[in-house]
Amino acid sequence: MAHPELFLKKNEDKRLRKGHLWVFSNEVDTERSPLNQFNPGDTVQVVASDGQIMGSAYINPGTLVCARLLSRKPAAKLGSKMFTTRIARALALRERFYSKPYYRLIFGESDGLPGLVIDRFADVLSVQITTAGIERQKEPLLDVLVELLKPSAILLKNDNPQRELEGLSTESICAYGKLPEQLIIEENNAQFKIDILEGQKTGWFYDHRSSRAELAKLAKDRTVLDLFSYAGGWGIPAALNHARQVTCVDASASAIALAEQNAHLNQVSDTMQFIQSDVFDYLKQARLDKKRFDIVILDPPALIKRKKDFKSGYEAYRRLNHLALQVLEKDGILVSASCSYHLSKANLHEILRSSSRHIDRNLSFVATGGQSPDHPVHPAIPETEYLKTFFCTVSESL
Amino acid sequence: MAHPELFLKKNEDKRLRKGHLWVFSNEVDTERSPLNQFNPGDTVQVVASDGQIMGSAYINPGTLVCARLLSRKPAAKLGSKMFTTRIARALALRERFYSKPYYRLIFGESDGLPGLVIDRFADVLSVQITTAGIERQKEPLLDVLVELLKPSAILLKNDNPQRELEGLSTESICAYGKLPEQLIIEENNAQFKIDILEGQKTGWFYDHRSSRAELAKLAKDRTVLDLFSYAGGWGIPAALNHARQVTCVDASASAIALAEQNAHLNQVSDTMQFIQSDVFDYLKQARLDKKRFDIVILDPPALIKRKKDFKSGYEAYRRLNHLALQVLEKDGILVSASCSYHLSKANLHEILRSSSRHIDRNLSFVATGGQSPDHPVHPAIPETEYLKTFFCTVSESL
Repeated sequence: MAHPELFLKKNEDKRLRKGHLWVFSNEVDTERSPLNQFNPGDTVQVVASDGQIMGSAYINPGTLVCARLLSRKPAAKLGSKMFTTRIARALALRERFYSKPYYRLIFGESDGLPGLVIDRFADVLSVQITTAGIERQKEPLLDVLVELLKPSAILLKNDNPQRELEGLSTESICAYGKLPEQLIIEENNAQFKIDILEGQKTGWFYDHRSSRAELAKLAKDRTVLDLFSYAGGWGIPAALNHARQVTCVDASASAIALAEQNAHLNQVSDTMQFIQSDVFDYLKQARLDKKRFDIVILDPPALIKRKKDFKSGYEAYRRLNHLALQVLEKDGILVSASCSYHLSKANLHEILRSSSRHIDRNLSFVATGGQSPDHPVHPAIPETEYLKTFFCTVSESL
Repeated sequence: MAHPELFLKKNEDKRLRKGHLWVFSNEVDTERSPLNQFNPGDTVQVVASDGQIMGSAYINPGTLVCARLLSRKPAAKLGSKMFTTRIARALALRERFYSKPYYRLIFGESDGLPGLVIDRFADVLSVQITTAGIERQKEPLLDVLVELLKPSAILLKNDNPQRELEGLSTESICAYGKLPEQLIIEENNAQFKIDILEGQKTGWFYDHRSSRAELAKLAKDRTVLDLFSYAGGWGIPAALNHARQVTCVDASASAIALAEQNAHLNQVSDTMQFIQSDVFDYLKQARLDKKRFDIVILDPPALIKRKKDFKSGYEAYRRLNHLALQVLEKDGILVSASCSYHLSKANLHEILRSSSRHIDRNLSFVATGGQSPDHPVHPAIPETEYLKTFFCTVSESL
């Protein structure tokens, strides 16, 4: 049986034709297809104003992005079969890049499953469902995950505020098996204890793995400052690679406690120190004290969450980078990252250019990093590319 | 003694203030400082219209970029001291990234030496001088290189057409020592025989080293097509990493001969084949024959050399990428690169997006590469960033 039709206004099929998967509510021809006839999570076929079928989608009539395309085939629907095909394909892709089962298994639209993010920590899965469309198919999803991956536990990490907009509960629950007392993952030849229930996001940030590996290679015999360190994802591989001294700074007591435990776990406590402090305050004091580091890693959380916060967020990034450059040793390396989608790569480039000019330093970009391969970028969906990381060498002015 | 003054027109100091190093001839206030009073290679101090000194530069009154800034200090001049400082700094930077002496040692503006490129092949140096300013200081440059690096030979690779515009000879000469009969370099755990006298550019393209290393990691048990293979920089490390089969295609007989010799040198001839053919012709025939490869590397020479060639060059890139996608095995990997400065990263992104949509394939970007760290990017000089490399996975449409 054909899915009910969702008609688009004239010319509103362009984005979809280019490969994007989203339909905004103001693009729907609500005279031909009133949104209030649909329930959250219903499957529809999306139809251009000229009658051409764009594909099948799930819908949530109450949200800004009201439909997300699942397939170019009009009769396709979310369920066991689609989950099996797409998760198996995503798994095969990860297995090409990673020999151990620690990665983001599903990255939403990029893996053909809008509204779904799954991080794999060996046999523990942390699942983020952010749309009513996926939520309604939760049971077949869990069944497929159990069948394909034989996990010991599946956590539904429901604390994402986007769920509220979709009318979904925000209480995290263990939906399958039993969460281990302690969860230890591997990344870049280091081990990390993580806290998936109380930790940030899904519990770990796999997206920086490639850049962290690059940084570790440069750390031997150097002093390293790891700002916004969280659980030590940058600092600990650097210490394992014989950094002379690694200083982790984070405002969160639980993050610092986790980083400290991870230093112990990796037997690098001797060369590491941990400071619980606001990063701005720390940098200002370090500048006053004339502290200098061979390598500074500046990897803040998203400082621009919504477009309207751009101006204040940009200013925060600018101040942080400016300060970070000032605690850098002569001929040092600054790794400057941003995970804010709304701060473009060009914006961060400009912040680094102008900050280095302002303090009369000679800055060069020696490498540019992005999301690791387990966070693929969809070529027609700019929103899937959010992470940028510049590796800069900074020397005296010419 | 102060250098003679080169005055800029009003507002023409903006680019320099942002950190760029070039002065275009139409930006010069020729009433205050007629260009015909200068000889090619003279040193000047560049002065904004309001009298503020921008720094010292060398000049060539007959060229479009008529002056290139050497320093923000007005009295600085090119010579032994400046060469020593800057080459030593550039060397230290390379030694942070590379344990063996195979790299681009000097990358023009990015290393504070506009008009100079030096590739290091252990104790052989290949030097490209492209401006009259550097040419005039050739003797101290050679002395400094001998002093710092103790080379066995220095080749002045003068076949760059830009030299003609600067009024310089285009005959390559060995300016110091004796070139070896045979030159073998190392990159990504492979050895390559190269021909620095007759080969392309300086004889080798170090700029793709990081991306080639990434590709090799993915090659195990796969079939690999290396298009525009030149001496085998992509294909041979892939073969060494146990690719099932590697096919190198290049239109140049000497490139193919070099690639074949390098396969022999690395003892991977058994799994490699070499085809001398125009790449377009090869791809069209392969498509007809329904040949498929797990991995296709598309790394053409610059197809857009000048801005005015953009349209035809863009079309050539589009056709090549389109064809390459069509000889890709299901769930294959396409590595698509461009070294044309005039083809932006966004242009290549768009070519890949539209080509994959056109043949109804699901393409994802899993990694993005750029110039290796021995080709640093100057934050205020977009011209120093020319290389872009997309790693794409391509599967059936959703």
